[in-house]
Amino acid sequence: MRSLWLLLIPCLSLSLAPFVQTEKGLEFPRYDGNDRVIDINDKNYKKAMKKYSILCLLYHKPIPDGKELQKQHQMTEMVLELAAQVMEEKEIGFGMVDSHEDVKVAKKLGLVEEGSVYVFKGDRVIEFDGLLSADTLVEFLLDLLEEPVEVIGNTLELRAFDRMEEDIRLIGYFKNDESEYYHEFKEAAEQFQPYIRFFATFEKSVAKELTLKMNEVDFYEPFMEEPVTVPDRPNSEEEIVAFVTEHRRPTLRKLRAEDMFETWEDDLEGIHVVAFAEEEDPDGYEFLELLKEVARDNTHHPGLSIIWIDPDDFPLLIPYWEKTFHVDLFKPQIGVVNVTDADSIWLEIDEQDLPTAQELEDWIEDVLSGKVNTEDDDDDNDDDDEDDDDKDDKNPINRFCFSRI
Amino acid sequence: MRSLWLLLIPCLSLSLAPFVQTEKGLEFPRYDGNDRVIDINDKNYKKAMKKYSILCLLYHKPIPDGKELQKQHQMTEMVLELAAQVMEEKEIGFGMVDSHEDVKVAKKLGLVEEGSVYVFKGDRVIEFDGLLSADTLVEFLLDLLEEPVEVIGNTLELRAFDRMEEDIRLIGYFKNDESEYYHEFKEAAEQFQPYIRFFATFEKSVAKELTLKMNEVDFYEPFMEEPVTVPDRPNSEEEIVAFVTEHRRPTLRKLRAEDMFETWEDDLEGIHVVAFAEEEDPDGYEFLELLKEVARDNTHHPGLSIIWIDPDDFPLLIPYWEKTFHVDLFKPQIGVVNVTDADSIWLEIDEQDLPTAQELEDWIEDVLSGKVNTEDDDDDNDDDDEDDDDKDDKNPINRFCFSRI
Repeated sequence: MRSLWLLLIPCLSLSLAPFVQTEKGLEFPRYDGNDRVIDINDKNYKKAMKKYSILCLLYHKPIPDGKELQKQHQMTEMVLELAAQVMEEKEIGFGMVDSHEDVKVAKKLGLVEEGSVYVFKGDRVIEFDGLLSADTLVEFLLDLLEEPVEVIGNTLELRAFDRMEEDIRLIGYFKNDESEYYHEFKEAAEQFQPYIRFFATFEKSVAKELTLKMNEVDFYEPFMEEPVTVPDRPNSEEEIVAFVTEHRRPTLRKLRAEDMFETWEDDLEGIHVVAFAEEEDPDGYEFLELLKEVARDNTHHPGLSIIWIDPDDFPLLIPYWEKTFHVDLFKPQIGVVNVTDADSIWLEIDEQDLPTAQELEDWIEDVLSGKVNTEDDDDDNDDDDEDDDDKDDKNPINRFCFSRI
Repeated sequence: MRSLWLLLIPCLSLSLAPFVQTEKGLEFPRYDGNDRVIDINDKNYKKAMKKYSILCLLYHKPIPDGKELQKQHQMTEMVLELAAQVMEEKEIGFGMVDSHEDVKVAKKLGLVEEGSVYVFKGDRVIEFDGLLSADTLVEFLLDLLEEPVEVIGNTLELRAFDRMEEDIRLIGYFKNDESEYYHEFKEAAEQFQPYIRFFATFEKSVAKELTLKMNEVDFYEPFMEEPVTVPDRPNSEEEIVAFVTEHRRPTLRKLRAEDMFETWEDDLEGIHVVAFAEEEDPDGYEFLELLKEVARDNTHHPGLSIIWIDPDDFPLLIPYWEKTFHVDLFKPQIGVVNVTDADSIWLEIDEQDLPTAQELEDWIEDVLSGKVNTEDDDDDNDDDDEDDDDKDDKNPINRFCFSRI
C-alpha cells in the first residue's frame, strides 16, 4: 500500500464515494484544498492581527531539510488548514511562525515554546499546548468564543456546576451583571479562559446553597469537596488572578487532550504519579473514588500532584502505554513515571481486592520519600528505546496525533 | 499549499521533528508504512479467519475509476492500517472486501451494508457502523476484548452502574459464576457486546439495593429511572436476547461516535427529533433534565425516539450543523430533521426562560401529529445543496471523518 500514499492527499477535497449515505445531517467536513493558513512574517502579521477576531499561530521549528520531516510538517499544516476551514465563518484566522526565519515577529508576539499554538484574542495571548488534532483545536477555540463567565440562574443549573468535579472552577455571588466586582471577576475569568471555568450567580437562593456571601468568590480544586474562599472580599481582578495562579496545580488532575502536553511538562522533579482508571468500569470507578479520598486527605502536600488518565479518552495510546509501562490497562493501575525516559514502576494491584486508602497513601508516601522509584527495576531499556523519537521503525510514535488529523 | 500534498503521505512513518518533546510517555502512534490490511478474496478469507482472534472487514463499494475517489478510498485504507498497527499485538486482523469483486465471499460472510466494518469474533459477527476514525474503531475493538459481563462486587461499584444512565444496560443477580442462569445471561451479553452493557452481581447486598430477586434480570432504558424486569425468570439466552431486541430502541438516546450512522439510519418515517444540549453548560444541563422528564412521561409512546446530541462530542460538526440547520449551538435546541435532505424546523427557545416540560411535550405532540413538520418553512434549498454529497466545493462534507483519520 505504501506506493499508493503518493496519490493520496489531493483526495481531501473530494467526497468519499464508497461511503455515500442516503441519510443527511451527519456529514463531516473535509479539507477543500483552499489555502487559508498564513505564513506569518514581519510584513503581514499586523494585518492578520487586525483581520481576525481570533488569530491562532503555530510556533514551529524551521522546516528541516529532510524530505520526510518536511512532509510531516505539512501534515501539521493540514490540521491547521482543516481547522481554519471549519472556523472560517467564526472569523478565526490561522498562521505559522518559523522560530528561525521569523525571530523578530516571534519576539514581538512573545512566542516561546516551539510546537505550541498561540491564540491571540483581543489583548490576550493563550497558549494551546494540547493534542494537535483538528477536533481538539476546534473545540478549544469554540470554548474561547463562549462567555468567560457562565451565569447560574437556578438550583437546577447549580447541579450542572456540582457535576464538574474534574475541572478547576470558581464561582462568585454578585448583586447583578452591572456590579463592579462582577466586572473584576469577569476580567479575571478572561485570563484563564478556557482552561479554568468561571461561574457567577445573582440569585440569593443559589448563593445560599453555596454558602456564598455577597461579592464572595469560592475556588474549587478538582475532586475536592470543600471550596477555598478567595480572601478579603470584595476582590479585584489582580487578587483573583494571583489566587488562581497560586492554587492552580491540583493534588489530583485528569489528563485532558486540550492541555495534555502542558500537564505532562508540569512534572515534579522529573516524575509523575500516574493513575490509570476507567471511570465507566466498576473497578476503575471504585479505584478512582479511593484516589479522590487520598487526594482529599493530602491536598495540602505541596509535593503531591497525581495525574489521572482515563484510558477511554486516549484509545490509541492504550497499546503503547501497555507496552511502554508493562501494565494491563483493563484494570486500574497507579505508578511512578520518569518523564525523561518513560521508565516506570507500578503498584501491585489485585483487582478483586483493591488497596485501601491507607495502603494507597503509604505507597504514595514511599514515592514522595524516594523509597519507591523508577530505578528499582532495570529491565526497561528495550522499552525506553521505543519511547525515543528516533528512527526506531518497529514502534514509531509521535507527539502529533496522526490518528486525529 | 495544495501542491505540497503530493509529498505528504510517506511521512507517516517518520517522526514529527518540529514537535520532538523532551518529556516521554505521551507519544501517539503513527503509521509505520507496513502493509497489514488484507485484500480479502475467495482464496484467503478462511486463512485470515483462522489467523486472528478478531477479524475486522470493511465492506466497500468497488474502487471507482476516478483518481480522486481512489485516493479517498486510500484514506480509508489508511485508517484501517493505523488501527491494524495499533491493535497488532492484540491479535486483531483487518481486511477489505469489495462488494463487486468479492460477491461470493461477501455472501458467505453475510456482509450487507457497504461502508460498514464487520467484526468477526468467534462465531459472532458485529457490525460497526460508526465514525470511521482510528480512535473510534480502536476503542470499539478494545471494548470487544473485555468480558461481556461486568461483575458488580459491592455497593460502591454499583454507583458506577448508576451513573451510566446514557447507556442501555442490563443487570442480573445470580448465585455465583457457575450458575447456569448466569451462563445464559453471559451468552446473551455476547450477542450485544459492546453496544449494550451487561452487568451481574453475586452479592446479596447489591441485589437488595437493586431489588433484584435470585436469577432476576432488570433492563434499564437510557435515562429512565425505573428498570423493566425481564419476565418469567429464570431466563434463557433466547428470552433475554428477544427481550433486548424488542426494547432496544429507546425514547431518548445519545448520539455516540461508535454507532452514529446506525442511529441516524434508524429514523422514524424519515425524520428525527433532534435535541442539541451541552451537558457541561448550565443551560444545556437544565434543558437536558427537561428532556429526560418528557422522555420518562412518554416512554410508552412507540412513535417517539429523540436523539440527544452533545455538541462537545462532535466539535467539527458544530459549524456544519449551525449552517445546515440555521441554529445557534451555543444554546440548547430541539427540532425535527428530515434525514433525506437535512431540512429541519426548530422550536423557538428563550435561553433565559426555557420551555416547561409541558410546553416541550405539546411541541413533541405537534411533531408526532405532523402539525409541526419540516415542510412548513421553504427557504432551505440553498442549505440542502450543501448537504448533498455532490461536487459542491464551497462546503465539502463527508461521512468519513478526515479530521480523525
